[in-house]
Amino acid sequence: MQQHSPTTKVWDTHRREKQRRIESVQAVAQGKVLPTEQITAILETLIAPGDRVVMEGNNQKQADFLSRMLAKANPEKLHDLHMIMPSVSRAEHLDLFEHGIARKLDFAFSGPQSLRIAQLLEDGMMEIGAIHTYIELYSRLYVDLVPNIALIAGFKADRKGNLYTGASTEDTPALVEAAAFKNGIVIAQVNELVDDENDLPRVDIPGSWIDFVVVADKPFFIEPLFTRDPRLIKPVHVLMGMMAIKGIYAKHQVQSLNHGIGFNTAAIELLLPTYGEQLGLKGKICKHWTLNPHPTLIPAIESGWVDTVHCFGGELGMEEYIAARPDVFFTGSDGSMRSNRAFCQLAGQYAVDMFIGSTLQVDGLANSSTVTRGRLAGFGGAPNMGHDPHGRRHPTPAWLDMIEEPDPMARGRKLVVQMVETFQAGGKPTFVEKLEAIDVAKASGMPLAPVMIYGDDVTHVLTEEGIAHLHRARSLEERRAMVAAVAGITDVGLGVDAKRIAELRRQELVVFPEDMGIRRTDATRSLLAASSVGELVDWSGGLYNPPAKFRSW
Amino acid sequence: MQQHSPTTKVWDTHRREKQRRIESVQAVAQGKVLPTEQITAILETLIAPGDRVVMEGNNQKQADFLSRMLAKANPEKLHDLHMIMPSVSRAEHLDLFEHGIARKLDFAFSGPQSLRIAQLLEDGMMEIGAIHTYIELYSRLYVDLVPNIALIAGFKADRKGNLYTGASTEDTPALVEAAAFKNGIVIAQVNELVDDENDLPRVDIPGSWIDFVVVADKPFFIEPLFTRDPRLIKPVHVLMGMMAIKGIYAKHQVQSLNHGIGFNTAAIELLLPTYGEQLGLKGKICKHWTLNPHPTLIPAIESGWVDTVHCFGGELGMEEYIAARPDVFFTGSDGSMRSNRAFCQLAGQYAVDMFIGSTLQVDGLANSSTVTRGRLAGFGGAPNMGHDPHGRRHPTPAWLDMIEEPDPMARGRKLVVQMVETFQAGGKPTFVEKLEAIDVAKASGMPLAPVMIYGDDVTHVLTEEGIAHLHRARSLEERRAMVAAVAGITDVGLGVDAKRIAELRRQELVVFPEDMGIRRTDATRSLLAASSVGELVDWSGGLYNPPAKFRSW
Repeated sequence: MQQHSPTTKVWDTHRREKQRRIESVQAVAQGKVLPTEQITAILETLIAPGDRVVMEGNNQKQADFLSRMLAKANPEKLHDLHMIMPSVSRAEHLDLFEHGIARKLDFAFSGPQSLRIAQLLEDGMMEIGAIHTYIELYSRLYVDLVPNIALIAGFKADRKGNLYTGASTEDTPALVEAAAFKNGIVIAQVNELVDDENDLPRVDIPGSWIDFVVVADKPFFIEPLFTRDPRLIKPVHVLMGMMAIKGIYAKHQVQSLNHGIGFNTAAIELLLPTYGEQLGLKGKICKHWTLNPHPTLIPAIESGWVDTVHCFGGELGMEEYIAARPDVFFTGSDGSMRSNRAFCQLAGQYAVDMFIGSTLQVDGLANSSTVTRGRLAGFGGAPNMGHDPHGRRHPTPAWLDMIEEPDPMARGRKLVVQMVETFQAGGKPTFVEKLEAIDVAKASGMPLAPVMIYGDDVTHVLTEEGIAHLHRARSLEERRAMVAAVAGITDVGLGVDAKRIAELRRQELVVFPEDMGIRRTDATRSLLAASSVGELVDWSGGLYNPPAKFRSW
Repeated sequence: MQQHSPTTKVWDTHRREKQRRIESVQAVAQGKVLPTEQITAILETLIAPGDRVVMEGNNQKQADFLSRMLAKANPEKLHDLHMIMPSVSRAEHLDLFEHGIARKLDFAFSGPQSLRIAQLLEDGMMEIGAIHTYIELYSRLYVDLVPNIALIAGFKADRKGNLYTGASTEDTPALVEAAAFKNGIVIAQVNELVDDENDLPRVDIPGSWIDFVVVADKPFFIEPLFTRDPRLIKPVHVLMGMMAIKGIYAKHQVQSLNHGIGFNTAAIELLLPTYGEQLGLKGKICKHWTLNPHPTLIPAIESGWVDTVHCFGGELGMEEYIAARPDVFFTGSDGSMRSNRAFCQLAGQYAVDMFIGSTLQVDGLANSSTVTRGRLAGFGGAPNMGHDPHGRRHPTPAWLDMIEEPDPMARGRKLVVQMVETFQAGGKPTFVEKLEAIDVAKASGMPLAPVMIYGDDVTHVLTEEGIAHLHRARSLEERRAMVAAVAGITDVGLGVDAKRIAELRRQELVVFPEDMGIRRTDATRSLLAASSVGELVDWSGGLYNPPAKFRSW
């Protein structure tokens, strides 16, 4: 045995420091309740320079009171914070960097703030740790990004800290657990404080995980990100939807799936009760969904197509409808929805047959990206769901159907479908020789191009021209020809000649609508189960309550 | 718009059915508390034939009171149950099938019960849904295996159902959430009932998620699965450990990792404070771990090598040690550990640089399996951690180091290391031309061979002969030669000649100990930081309290 002297190391520095900080605000706190108007000064006391701070910002739920108040902190007191944020979505998230309060950022998604992030980087006011998918970022909270502080949002809390997150729980449990069980400090903003646990609709997070609650100056901000107005669905989307249903969903027996948020997939949702019904597919496909509660799914649910939907997050206006459909949605004992982004991403990765989504650019090998010049938009959830998980071992018919040759050493594959029009609005080609992401990476000093979905994970490319069954490609050259065959008159599409296309069609490596018995002239908007938001409300029996901006039908 | 008639469908059948069942036991229940001695009759009432029943059986924590009592049910009342179990580890788990109470099984792991499962299958008394990894099985609870019933285990509960899971939380939250938020019925067995929440050490699961608690006839069963006695570590393990540390960990800057449970990796843990220290690697490698609390990690922790350890589950005897090291382990406000298998598997998949583990059989392309004839042992967690997650987007030095040519469209890779001796105990070759798993699949009617880790995910094979850097293989032929070069005198190893091996070594595709400056004669047990369980106890300052069977030093 090696010699070793008795350790004199202190092993509870984090716990002692947490205790010290909590005691330092005892004069202003009432138990766990912090006073709203003094919160900035309190944050300056509870947080220390250099801390790793998780800030809840999701697709919908935002700890926006806490982020606004933190941005008012004195940078002489609070500086060099390392912010960890699923979604960078509000102006004050970046004010933190401009004011010198925060220095480093690890994040997963930044929609509207992506331009400003690129600017802050260029100006040397921000350092980026890494850009993640949501689920990677949660994972690192338990490994090398353990937070000192978690600033999160809930709907209601009692004085013991028991938290009701509201009708969309989202990321909160994953963010809180890492801090609560590693001697971090958890501060929850809530819309309302109640005296007793019995006054809470339900408990989503136990009070012993929450150190402080503070009533926000106004309810947390929510945005309806997943509502697609059926009026904006074009006949080409209907055509592509018909191809998807007949040429992919039915062909491969897709029973569980995730949809992206584009108009293409909204069209599919609205075609199930019409075109899908005509094909006799009800009960055979699309039974289990990992999906935000898309309003365009209402007709399929009402028509009995959908067994279950587990949600990443919520969608404004869908609360009452969800609460009235507990056989389909996951709801609590109070009746309102329980979403959980961590588990839904896990399910979307490992438990579903298919991911189908849209993108902005696709190269000749089907690599894709939503990054365009000057924007660091992040990854969100698509790379997690849009890849073939090699760790999967349970088979389903669709997964096994991706195996071409009988071979016990083969693996099945997840279906990863890229569904795009060959040109974007404004005539910009979707199919390009080289992704702009490559230059963005160079300009921002990223080690690799921010590719959303890699071509080797893609099984199908679907355009208005047809479907390329890439899972059957036997070589890179063939894969390239198949992509080109459905790339229309883009430069990529012009790289394959008619003879090769005919040969690919003969082998059913590429199929066009007519090969599937789909007439382009049948693809009209009249096939949609609902053609406006108003008709979605009708389908819901008045339970769906669309936000004002969608109320113009 | 399509015509649709107002729906007359009932949308809360599950909720109504749950309510009906709960009311049916009100005469015997005291609030949420069920009487211990009547539990079989109550289960016959709360569960219905054909139900999907989640039964908590993990590596350690077992809802064994509930499984024993369910096995006593009358098969005329309870039959055709569909059991969903992370781990099938107890005799009564299979009695359920023999008695005709259960019919279908979805599971992840079956250690000692694997032979009997194969027998029940052959006798037609059991139908297998699928064999999963743990995390896939949790995922499906939110998609197509939503449970009607969850039977789980905790340490203590109060009368409102608030649950303290004990010093190892494991799978419980993942199993409970799916049932609790989809109108399933959750029944928790506990070792002890307390009157009030304040008498619980902490709350791991809120009372509103738990429908019933019942005090078990005896404390739930735990087995120390991850304790490796240093006395059984052989010099060859020391040699292989030295190669791993110098030739893989240091070479690729592995900072976060998961270890398997073999003596090989136990040797590495015990070499860090000695050999690792000599190489000046402290603080440079092995800082963050996703790992059960292996006792053999104690010397590395005490020597300051380890920043954090997040655990899948617990390990008997490590409770006090963990509670005294909260800077390293994840612990609750009460001081005891919080493990979480779902999050730890997620972290082990997406947030660590490396997985390293042993296996029973490896073929010429580095596909591996632990399945041997007649045993359906399941997958557990290895395939999840032992694959390259294509959904990962954040870079680390080790991950980027797997890229051979500079290319912005390249991806990094997770290090997946197979560490095996060329022969198993008893002279059975580890390297084989064909995995026995292929015949097992045929015999059991499985669609694919139960491969634990696929060769294309493996970056390194390490044997007592040397290291094959498979991440650098440029063709299948080269990969095969590299595997053969470290496969010793097995048939696979004899398939490559000395000249080719010399060429592979010259290109550093394969490295032998002498190529790394490691002398085989230095690999002695005296290098181990502890050579017995007693010395581990010494290192821990008496905090590690090994179970009786390890107390023979």
